Amino acid sequence: MPVYTAPVKDTQFILQDVLHLENYANLEGFADATPDTVAAVLEQGGKFCEEVLHPLNQSGDAEGCTRLPDGSVTTPKGFKDAYRQFIESGWGTLSMPTEFGGQGLPHVVGIAFNEYLISSNMAFAMYPGLTHGAISSILVRGSEEQQKTFVPKMVSGEWLGTMNLTEPHCGTDLGLLRTKAEPQADGSYKITGTKIFISSGENDLAENIIHLVLAKIVGAPDNVKGISLFIVPKVHVNADGSLGEKNQVSCGSIEHKMGIKGSATCVMNYDGATGYLVGEREKGLQAMFIMMNAARLGVGQQGMGVSEIAYQNAAKYAKERIQGRALTGPADPTAKADSILVHPDVRRMLLDARAFNEAARGFVLWGGLLVDLAHKAATPEEREHADDLISLMTPVIKGYLTDGGYAAATNCQQVFGGHGYVEEWGMSQFVRDARIAMIYEGANGIQALDLVGRKLAQNGGRAIRAFFAMVAQICADNKSDAQMTPYIAPLEKALGHLQAGTMWLMQNGLANPDNAGAASYAYMQLMGHVCLGLTWAKMARAALDKLADGASDESFYKNKLILARHFAERTLPETGSLLRKIEAGSENLMAMAIADF
Amino acid sequence: MPVYTAPVKDTQFILQDVLHLENYANLEGFADATPDTVAAVLEQGGKFCEEVLHPLNQSGDAEGCTRLPDGSVTTPKGFKDAYRQFIESGWGTLSMPTEFGGQGLPHVVGIAFNEYLISSNMAFAMYPGLTHGAISSILVRGSEEQQKTFVPKMVSGEWLGTMNLTEPHCGTDLGLLRTKAEPQADGSYKITGTKIFISSGENDLAENIIHLVLAKIVGAPDNVKGISLFIVPKVHVNADGSLGEKNQVSCGSIEHKMGIKGSATCVMNYDGATGYLVGEREKGLQAMFIMMNAARLGVGQQGMGVSEIAYQNAAKYAKERIQGRALTGPADPTAKADSILVHPDVRRMLLDARAFNEAARGFVLWGGLLVDLAHKAATPEEREHADDLISLMTPVIKGYLTDGGYAAATNCQQVFGGHGYVEEWGMSQFVRDARIAMIYEGANGIQALDLVGRKLAQNGGRAIRAFFAMVAQICADNKSDAQMTPYIAPLEKALGHLQAGTMWLMQNGLANPDNAGAASYAYMQLMGHVCLGLTWAKMARAALDKLADGASDESFYKNKLILARHFAERTLPETGSLLRKIEAGSENLMAMAIADF
Repeated sequence: MPVYTAPVKDTQFILQDVLHLENYANLEGFADATPDTVAAVLEQGGKFCEEVLHPLNQSGDAEGCTRLPDGSVTTPKGFKDAYRQFIESGWGTLSMPTEFGGQGLPHVVGIAFNEYLISSNMAFAMYPGLTHGAISSILVRGSEEQQKTFVPKMVSGEWLGTMNLTEPHCGTDLGLLRTKAEPQADGSYKITGTKIFISSGENDLAENIIHLVLAKIVGAPDNVKGISLFIVPKVHVNADGSLGEKNQVSCGSIEHKMGIKGSATCVMNYDGATGYLVGEREKGLQAMFIMMNAARLGVGQQGMGVSEIAYQNAAKYAKERIQGRALTGPADPTAKADSILVHPDVRRMLLDARAFNEAARGFVLWGGLLVDLAHKAATPEEREHADDLISLMTPVIKGYLTDGGYAAATNCQQVFGGHGYVEEWGMSQFVRDARIAMIYEGANGIQALDLVGRKLAQNGGRAIRAFFAMVAQICADNKSDAQMTPYIAPLEKALGHLQAGTMWLMQNGLANPDNAGAASYAYMQLMGHVCLGLTWAKMARAALDKLADGASDESFYKNKLILARHFAERTLPETGSLLRKIEAGSENLMAMAIADF
Repeated sequence: MPVYTAPVKDTQFILQDVLHLENYANLEGFADATPDTVAAVLEQGGKFCEEVLHPLNQSGDAEGCTRLPDGSVTTPKGFKDAYRQFIESGWGTLSMPTEFGGQGLPHVVGIAFNEYLISSNMAFAMYPGLTHGAISSILVRGSEEQQKTFVPKMVSGEWLGTMNLTEPHCGTDLGLLRTKAEPQADGSYKITGTKIFISSGENDLAENIIHLVLAKIVGAPDNVKGISLFIVPKVHVNADGSLGEKNQVSCGSIEHKMGIKGSATCVMNYDGATGYLVGEREKGLQAMFIMMNAARLGVGQQGMGVSEIAYQNAAKYAKERIQGRALTGPADPTAKADSILVHPDVRRMLLDARAFNEAARGFVLWGGLLVDLAHKAATPEEREHADDLISLMTPVIKGYLTDGGYAAATNCQQVFGGHGYVEEWGMSQFVRDARIAMIYEGANGIQALDLVGRKLAQNGGRAIRAFFAMVAQICADNKSDAQMTPYIAPLEKALGHLQAGTMWLMQNGLANPDNAGAASYAYMQLMGHVCLGLTWAKMARAALDKLADGASDESFYKNKLILARHFAERTLPETGSLLRKIEAGSENLMAMAIADF
């Protein structure tokens, strides 16, 4: 059975030594997030994930969810009890607002804990994860009454939340959706239609499920401009907050999927269900995007979270697998064979994964901090700067980190040889689970288009210029330090490639949008490389500073330098090729007739 | 349900227009392989795969194999009947020797058909595939009596074959194996031990299974030099050829795997089973390697075969999925949306897969032809040349094509969005099935080591020099033709990177073998890129020649040029980065203490 240990020390290294949370103590919530408090949260939260959720991960995959003939759905054995414990210990409330019963800690702390949830049991983590997204939408766009009625119980976890976008014939192109909403005399709406791929759509964990549903009000434009957002509770909520009758919404079936089998993926039928408009009519997409953006960061984190547990198990296996001899001669002449870790190529697979994971963690946590700063920073300029950056980074975190997580999990599975292919060892599940993160919440190709077609140009390119300036500044600050050269020189080169790619897009993408589309994926990969290269530069700087300060755990910080150099030597060189792919343009890509595919 | 059409026209393009089989009509078996005969074989064989095997692929995955309490194993519903039809129509005998009941066609023709077997039902294809490998070992190393006793029924398919190498504690490092062989008075041996991951080890398709088993004869050196190879029939064969008693070998359990669920992967227990030495004692590994080399070509083909069916389905889905609009404005203004094939990035995923598949097919078939030439070419020089090349190419075909096949299948799954993750659509199965090909028959890291540590240096580097000369020749021959520039110029550049990488290995790998190990994977990828670039150059040349000859199906040949250019623009640029990874060396890779992983 797979093992899992929450990497609390690594998380703390990033929060305290790289992001320096103490610098933000003047901001709301941060004063309470002292290093000791954060350590306590992460240690206890990590323990909960290790001891309660992780043991259910493999069994949950094997058993999956079951839909009973009455339309109810049961989660795998143990999930219900684990969810009860999850609620009781308040793990879902860390960074939720205090006025709705949350603990009011910074978002970045909640995000840090969320990684452990994902690593230990990604399918389980879907239930509270989607709920958090739904809460954000209601908090930003919902009426005061809606907030009062629904949010406290969603924060506590007694009620779950879902997002309902996709229909059988459309996912990305929501303008095509057919679910309709008929206004009722009392101000509510009757919602009718079918939604598919609804995570947590029906389950036995909570007494109520608050569905957020996109639909078109009768008479609204039959395109993307006619979409409104509705709250549709599974069970009606009475004026006194107690639960009433069941609403006209039911689960028609659940999907048999490649992975995250413990997460119920439902076809939801709305048969004249009562719904409540959230925010303005025909502004549903904007309201849903608040949820989507939060969810996209969480999905990006899934990529690295699953890859983290895959790495932990592969490293353990490699240490214990005694077979073959070092290429340079027996490393352990007293034994019949050496650990397979004597082989450079086994180390390559593991270090590729770990160098990705650790930088991805730093990148995601920085993203979490940006979300805090976008809301809470002291000045409008600082808030705008943070908002610019997180807006630019969201598609990269989602798209690049989920691609990388899948690739890393696949590498870790490879370390096991044939055992990696057998379900018993758990590595297959990590790969199967990681796969979905590249697809949902906007397939990664859509992320690349969002980055290139929307985020780059927003506000006249203010965000990307700010990002370039930030990377250039870190390079300039560290250039004279010879110890930093192995990380800074390749990063500068990669930044040059990214800038050249951006220039190419400006010159060629506007004239012919197909050029932008053709370049988008390679551009997202190139940007992701630079983001992780930047993160490694920051982590290397922090590690060198700790070593210079005489930190006691020398090898911990020296290993960071090894990993930083590994990334610089073995991932960053790809940026040159990515630039060439960007510059290839769209002509040949568009040349084949559709019928000839 | 997924669709499949055997790509007979594409296969014929390679066999006739690129490899020019007619040039070899003087060689044994080739005279019979006229274009018409080959067309008939491929068309009828393709039809069999489409109509009989493909319909069982998805159901076989869902049902898997079952081990009954008595140790017998049943294959999924329909497999037994399909296998009976397979035998009766002689599809397994195409390139088997006529003296043992085969049809004596060239190996390359058998290989061409094998792709269709794999695409339509990879799990099913495992049963005859392993048998062919076992036949090769017996034909080369077995005694005349062994050949007479076992080979005819294996050729006909009435009996199946297996290879038994791996034990629970060792796979790659066979020197550690513990299965023992005790000599008996009658010249036979009693075999005792446990083997794992034995494909087809037990099943209900055939009346007998001929196990080829590696074991150490009592008293032999307890290392890789003490290994012998044995034939262990499941059921004893009487002197008159009839079946006798059951041998002391049984299936202890079957594995629950990520994919190829219709293939029974068995733990085999040998409890003093009667075995017959194949070839000389303590030369077992060499005998097994005959089988392994054949199997490795077949596994490389699995990578591209699964990717081919994944592409076919993704292309169909993309054509039919009407959603969103072209970036340049509505392509079909009369409809509410366009086919997703208007999007450059959707095309990128599909064309990456197809450009890989078609070149991989050309590469594998060239490999098949080399196997023929290594045995049958007119002069010793030609045979040696072919043997050199196929020996060099075997790890590349196995390692590079299975990595590429998995990546391409993953891309094709991505085209489906959320539907790709749902088992119903079949794309998950292709990815799960393709995954094993990177692992078994020597994990891909082992292939890279074989390439760099053994094949490059063999005979003073004769093979790699021959390969370089061949690529350089094609570049020189086509350089003056401007139409070929888009394919030749990038190929020349890639060749330069490969030569530089080879030089680096010569200068750094001998002094420190860890440098060779550290570079091995990137080197294999770089070599693979050059091999497919070479294949595309040959295919582009053939397509241009056909177009110049006024071939009727213009778009067929023009599409080859689009695909050739796609590969040149979007895959070949990676060779520069790969060279930089090679040159990174092993120092940093070996720096972290084993305990710190």
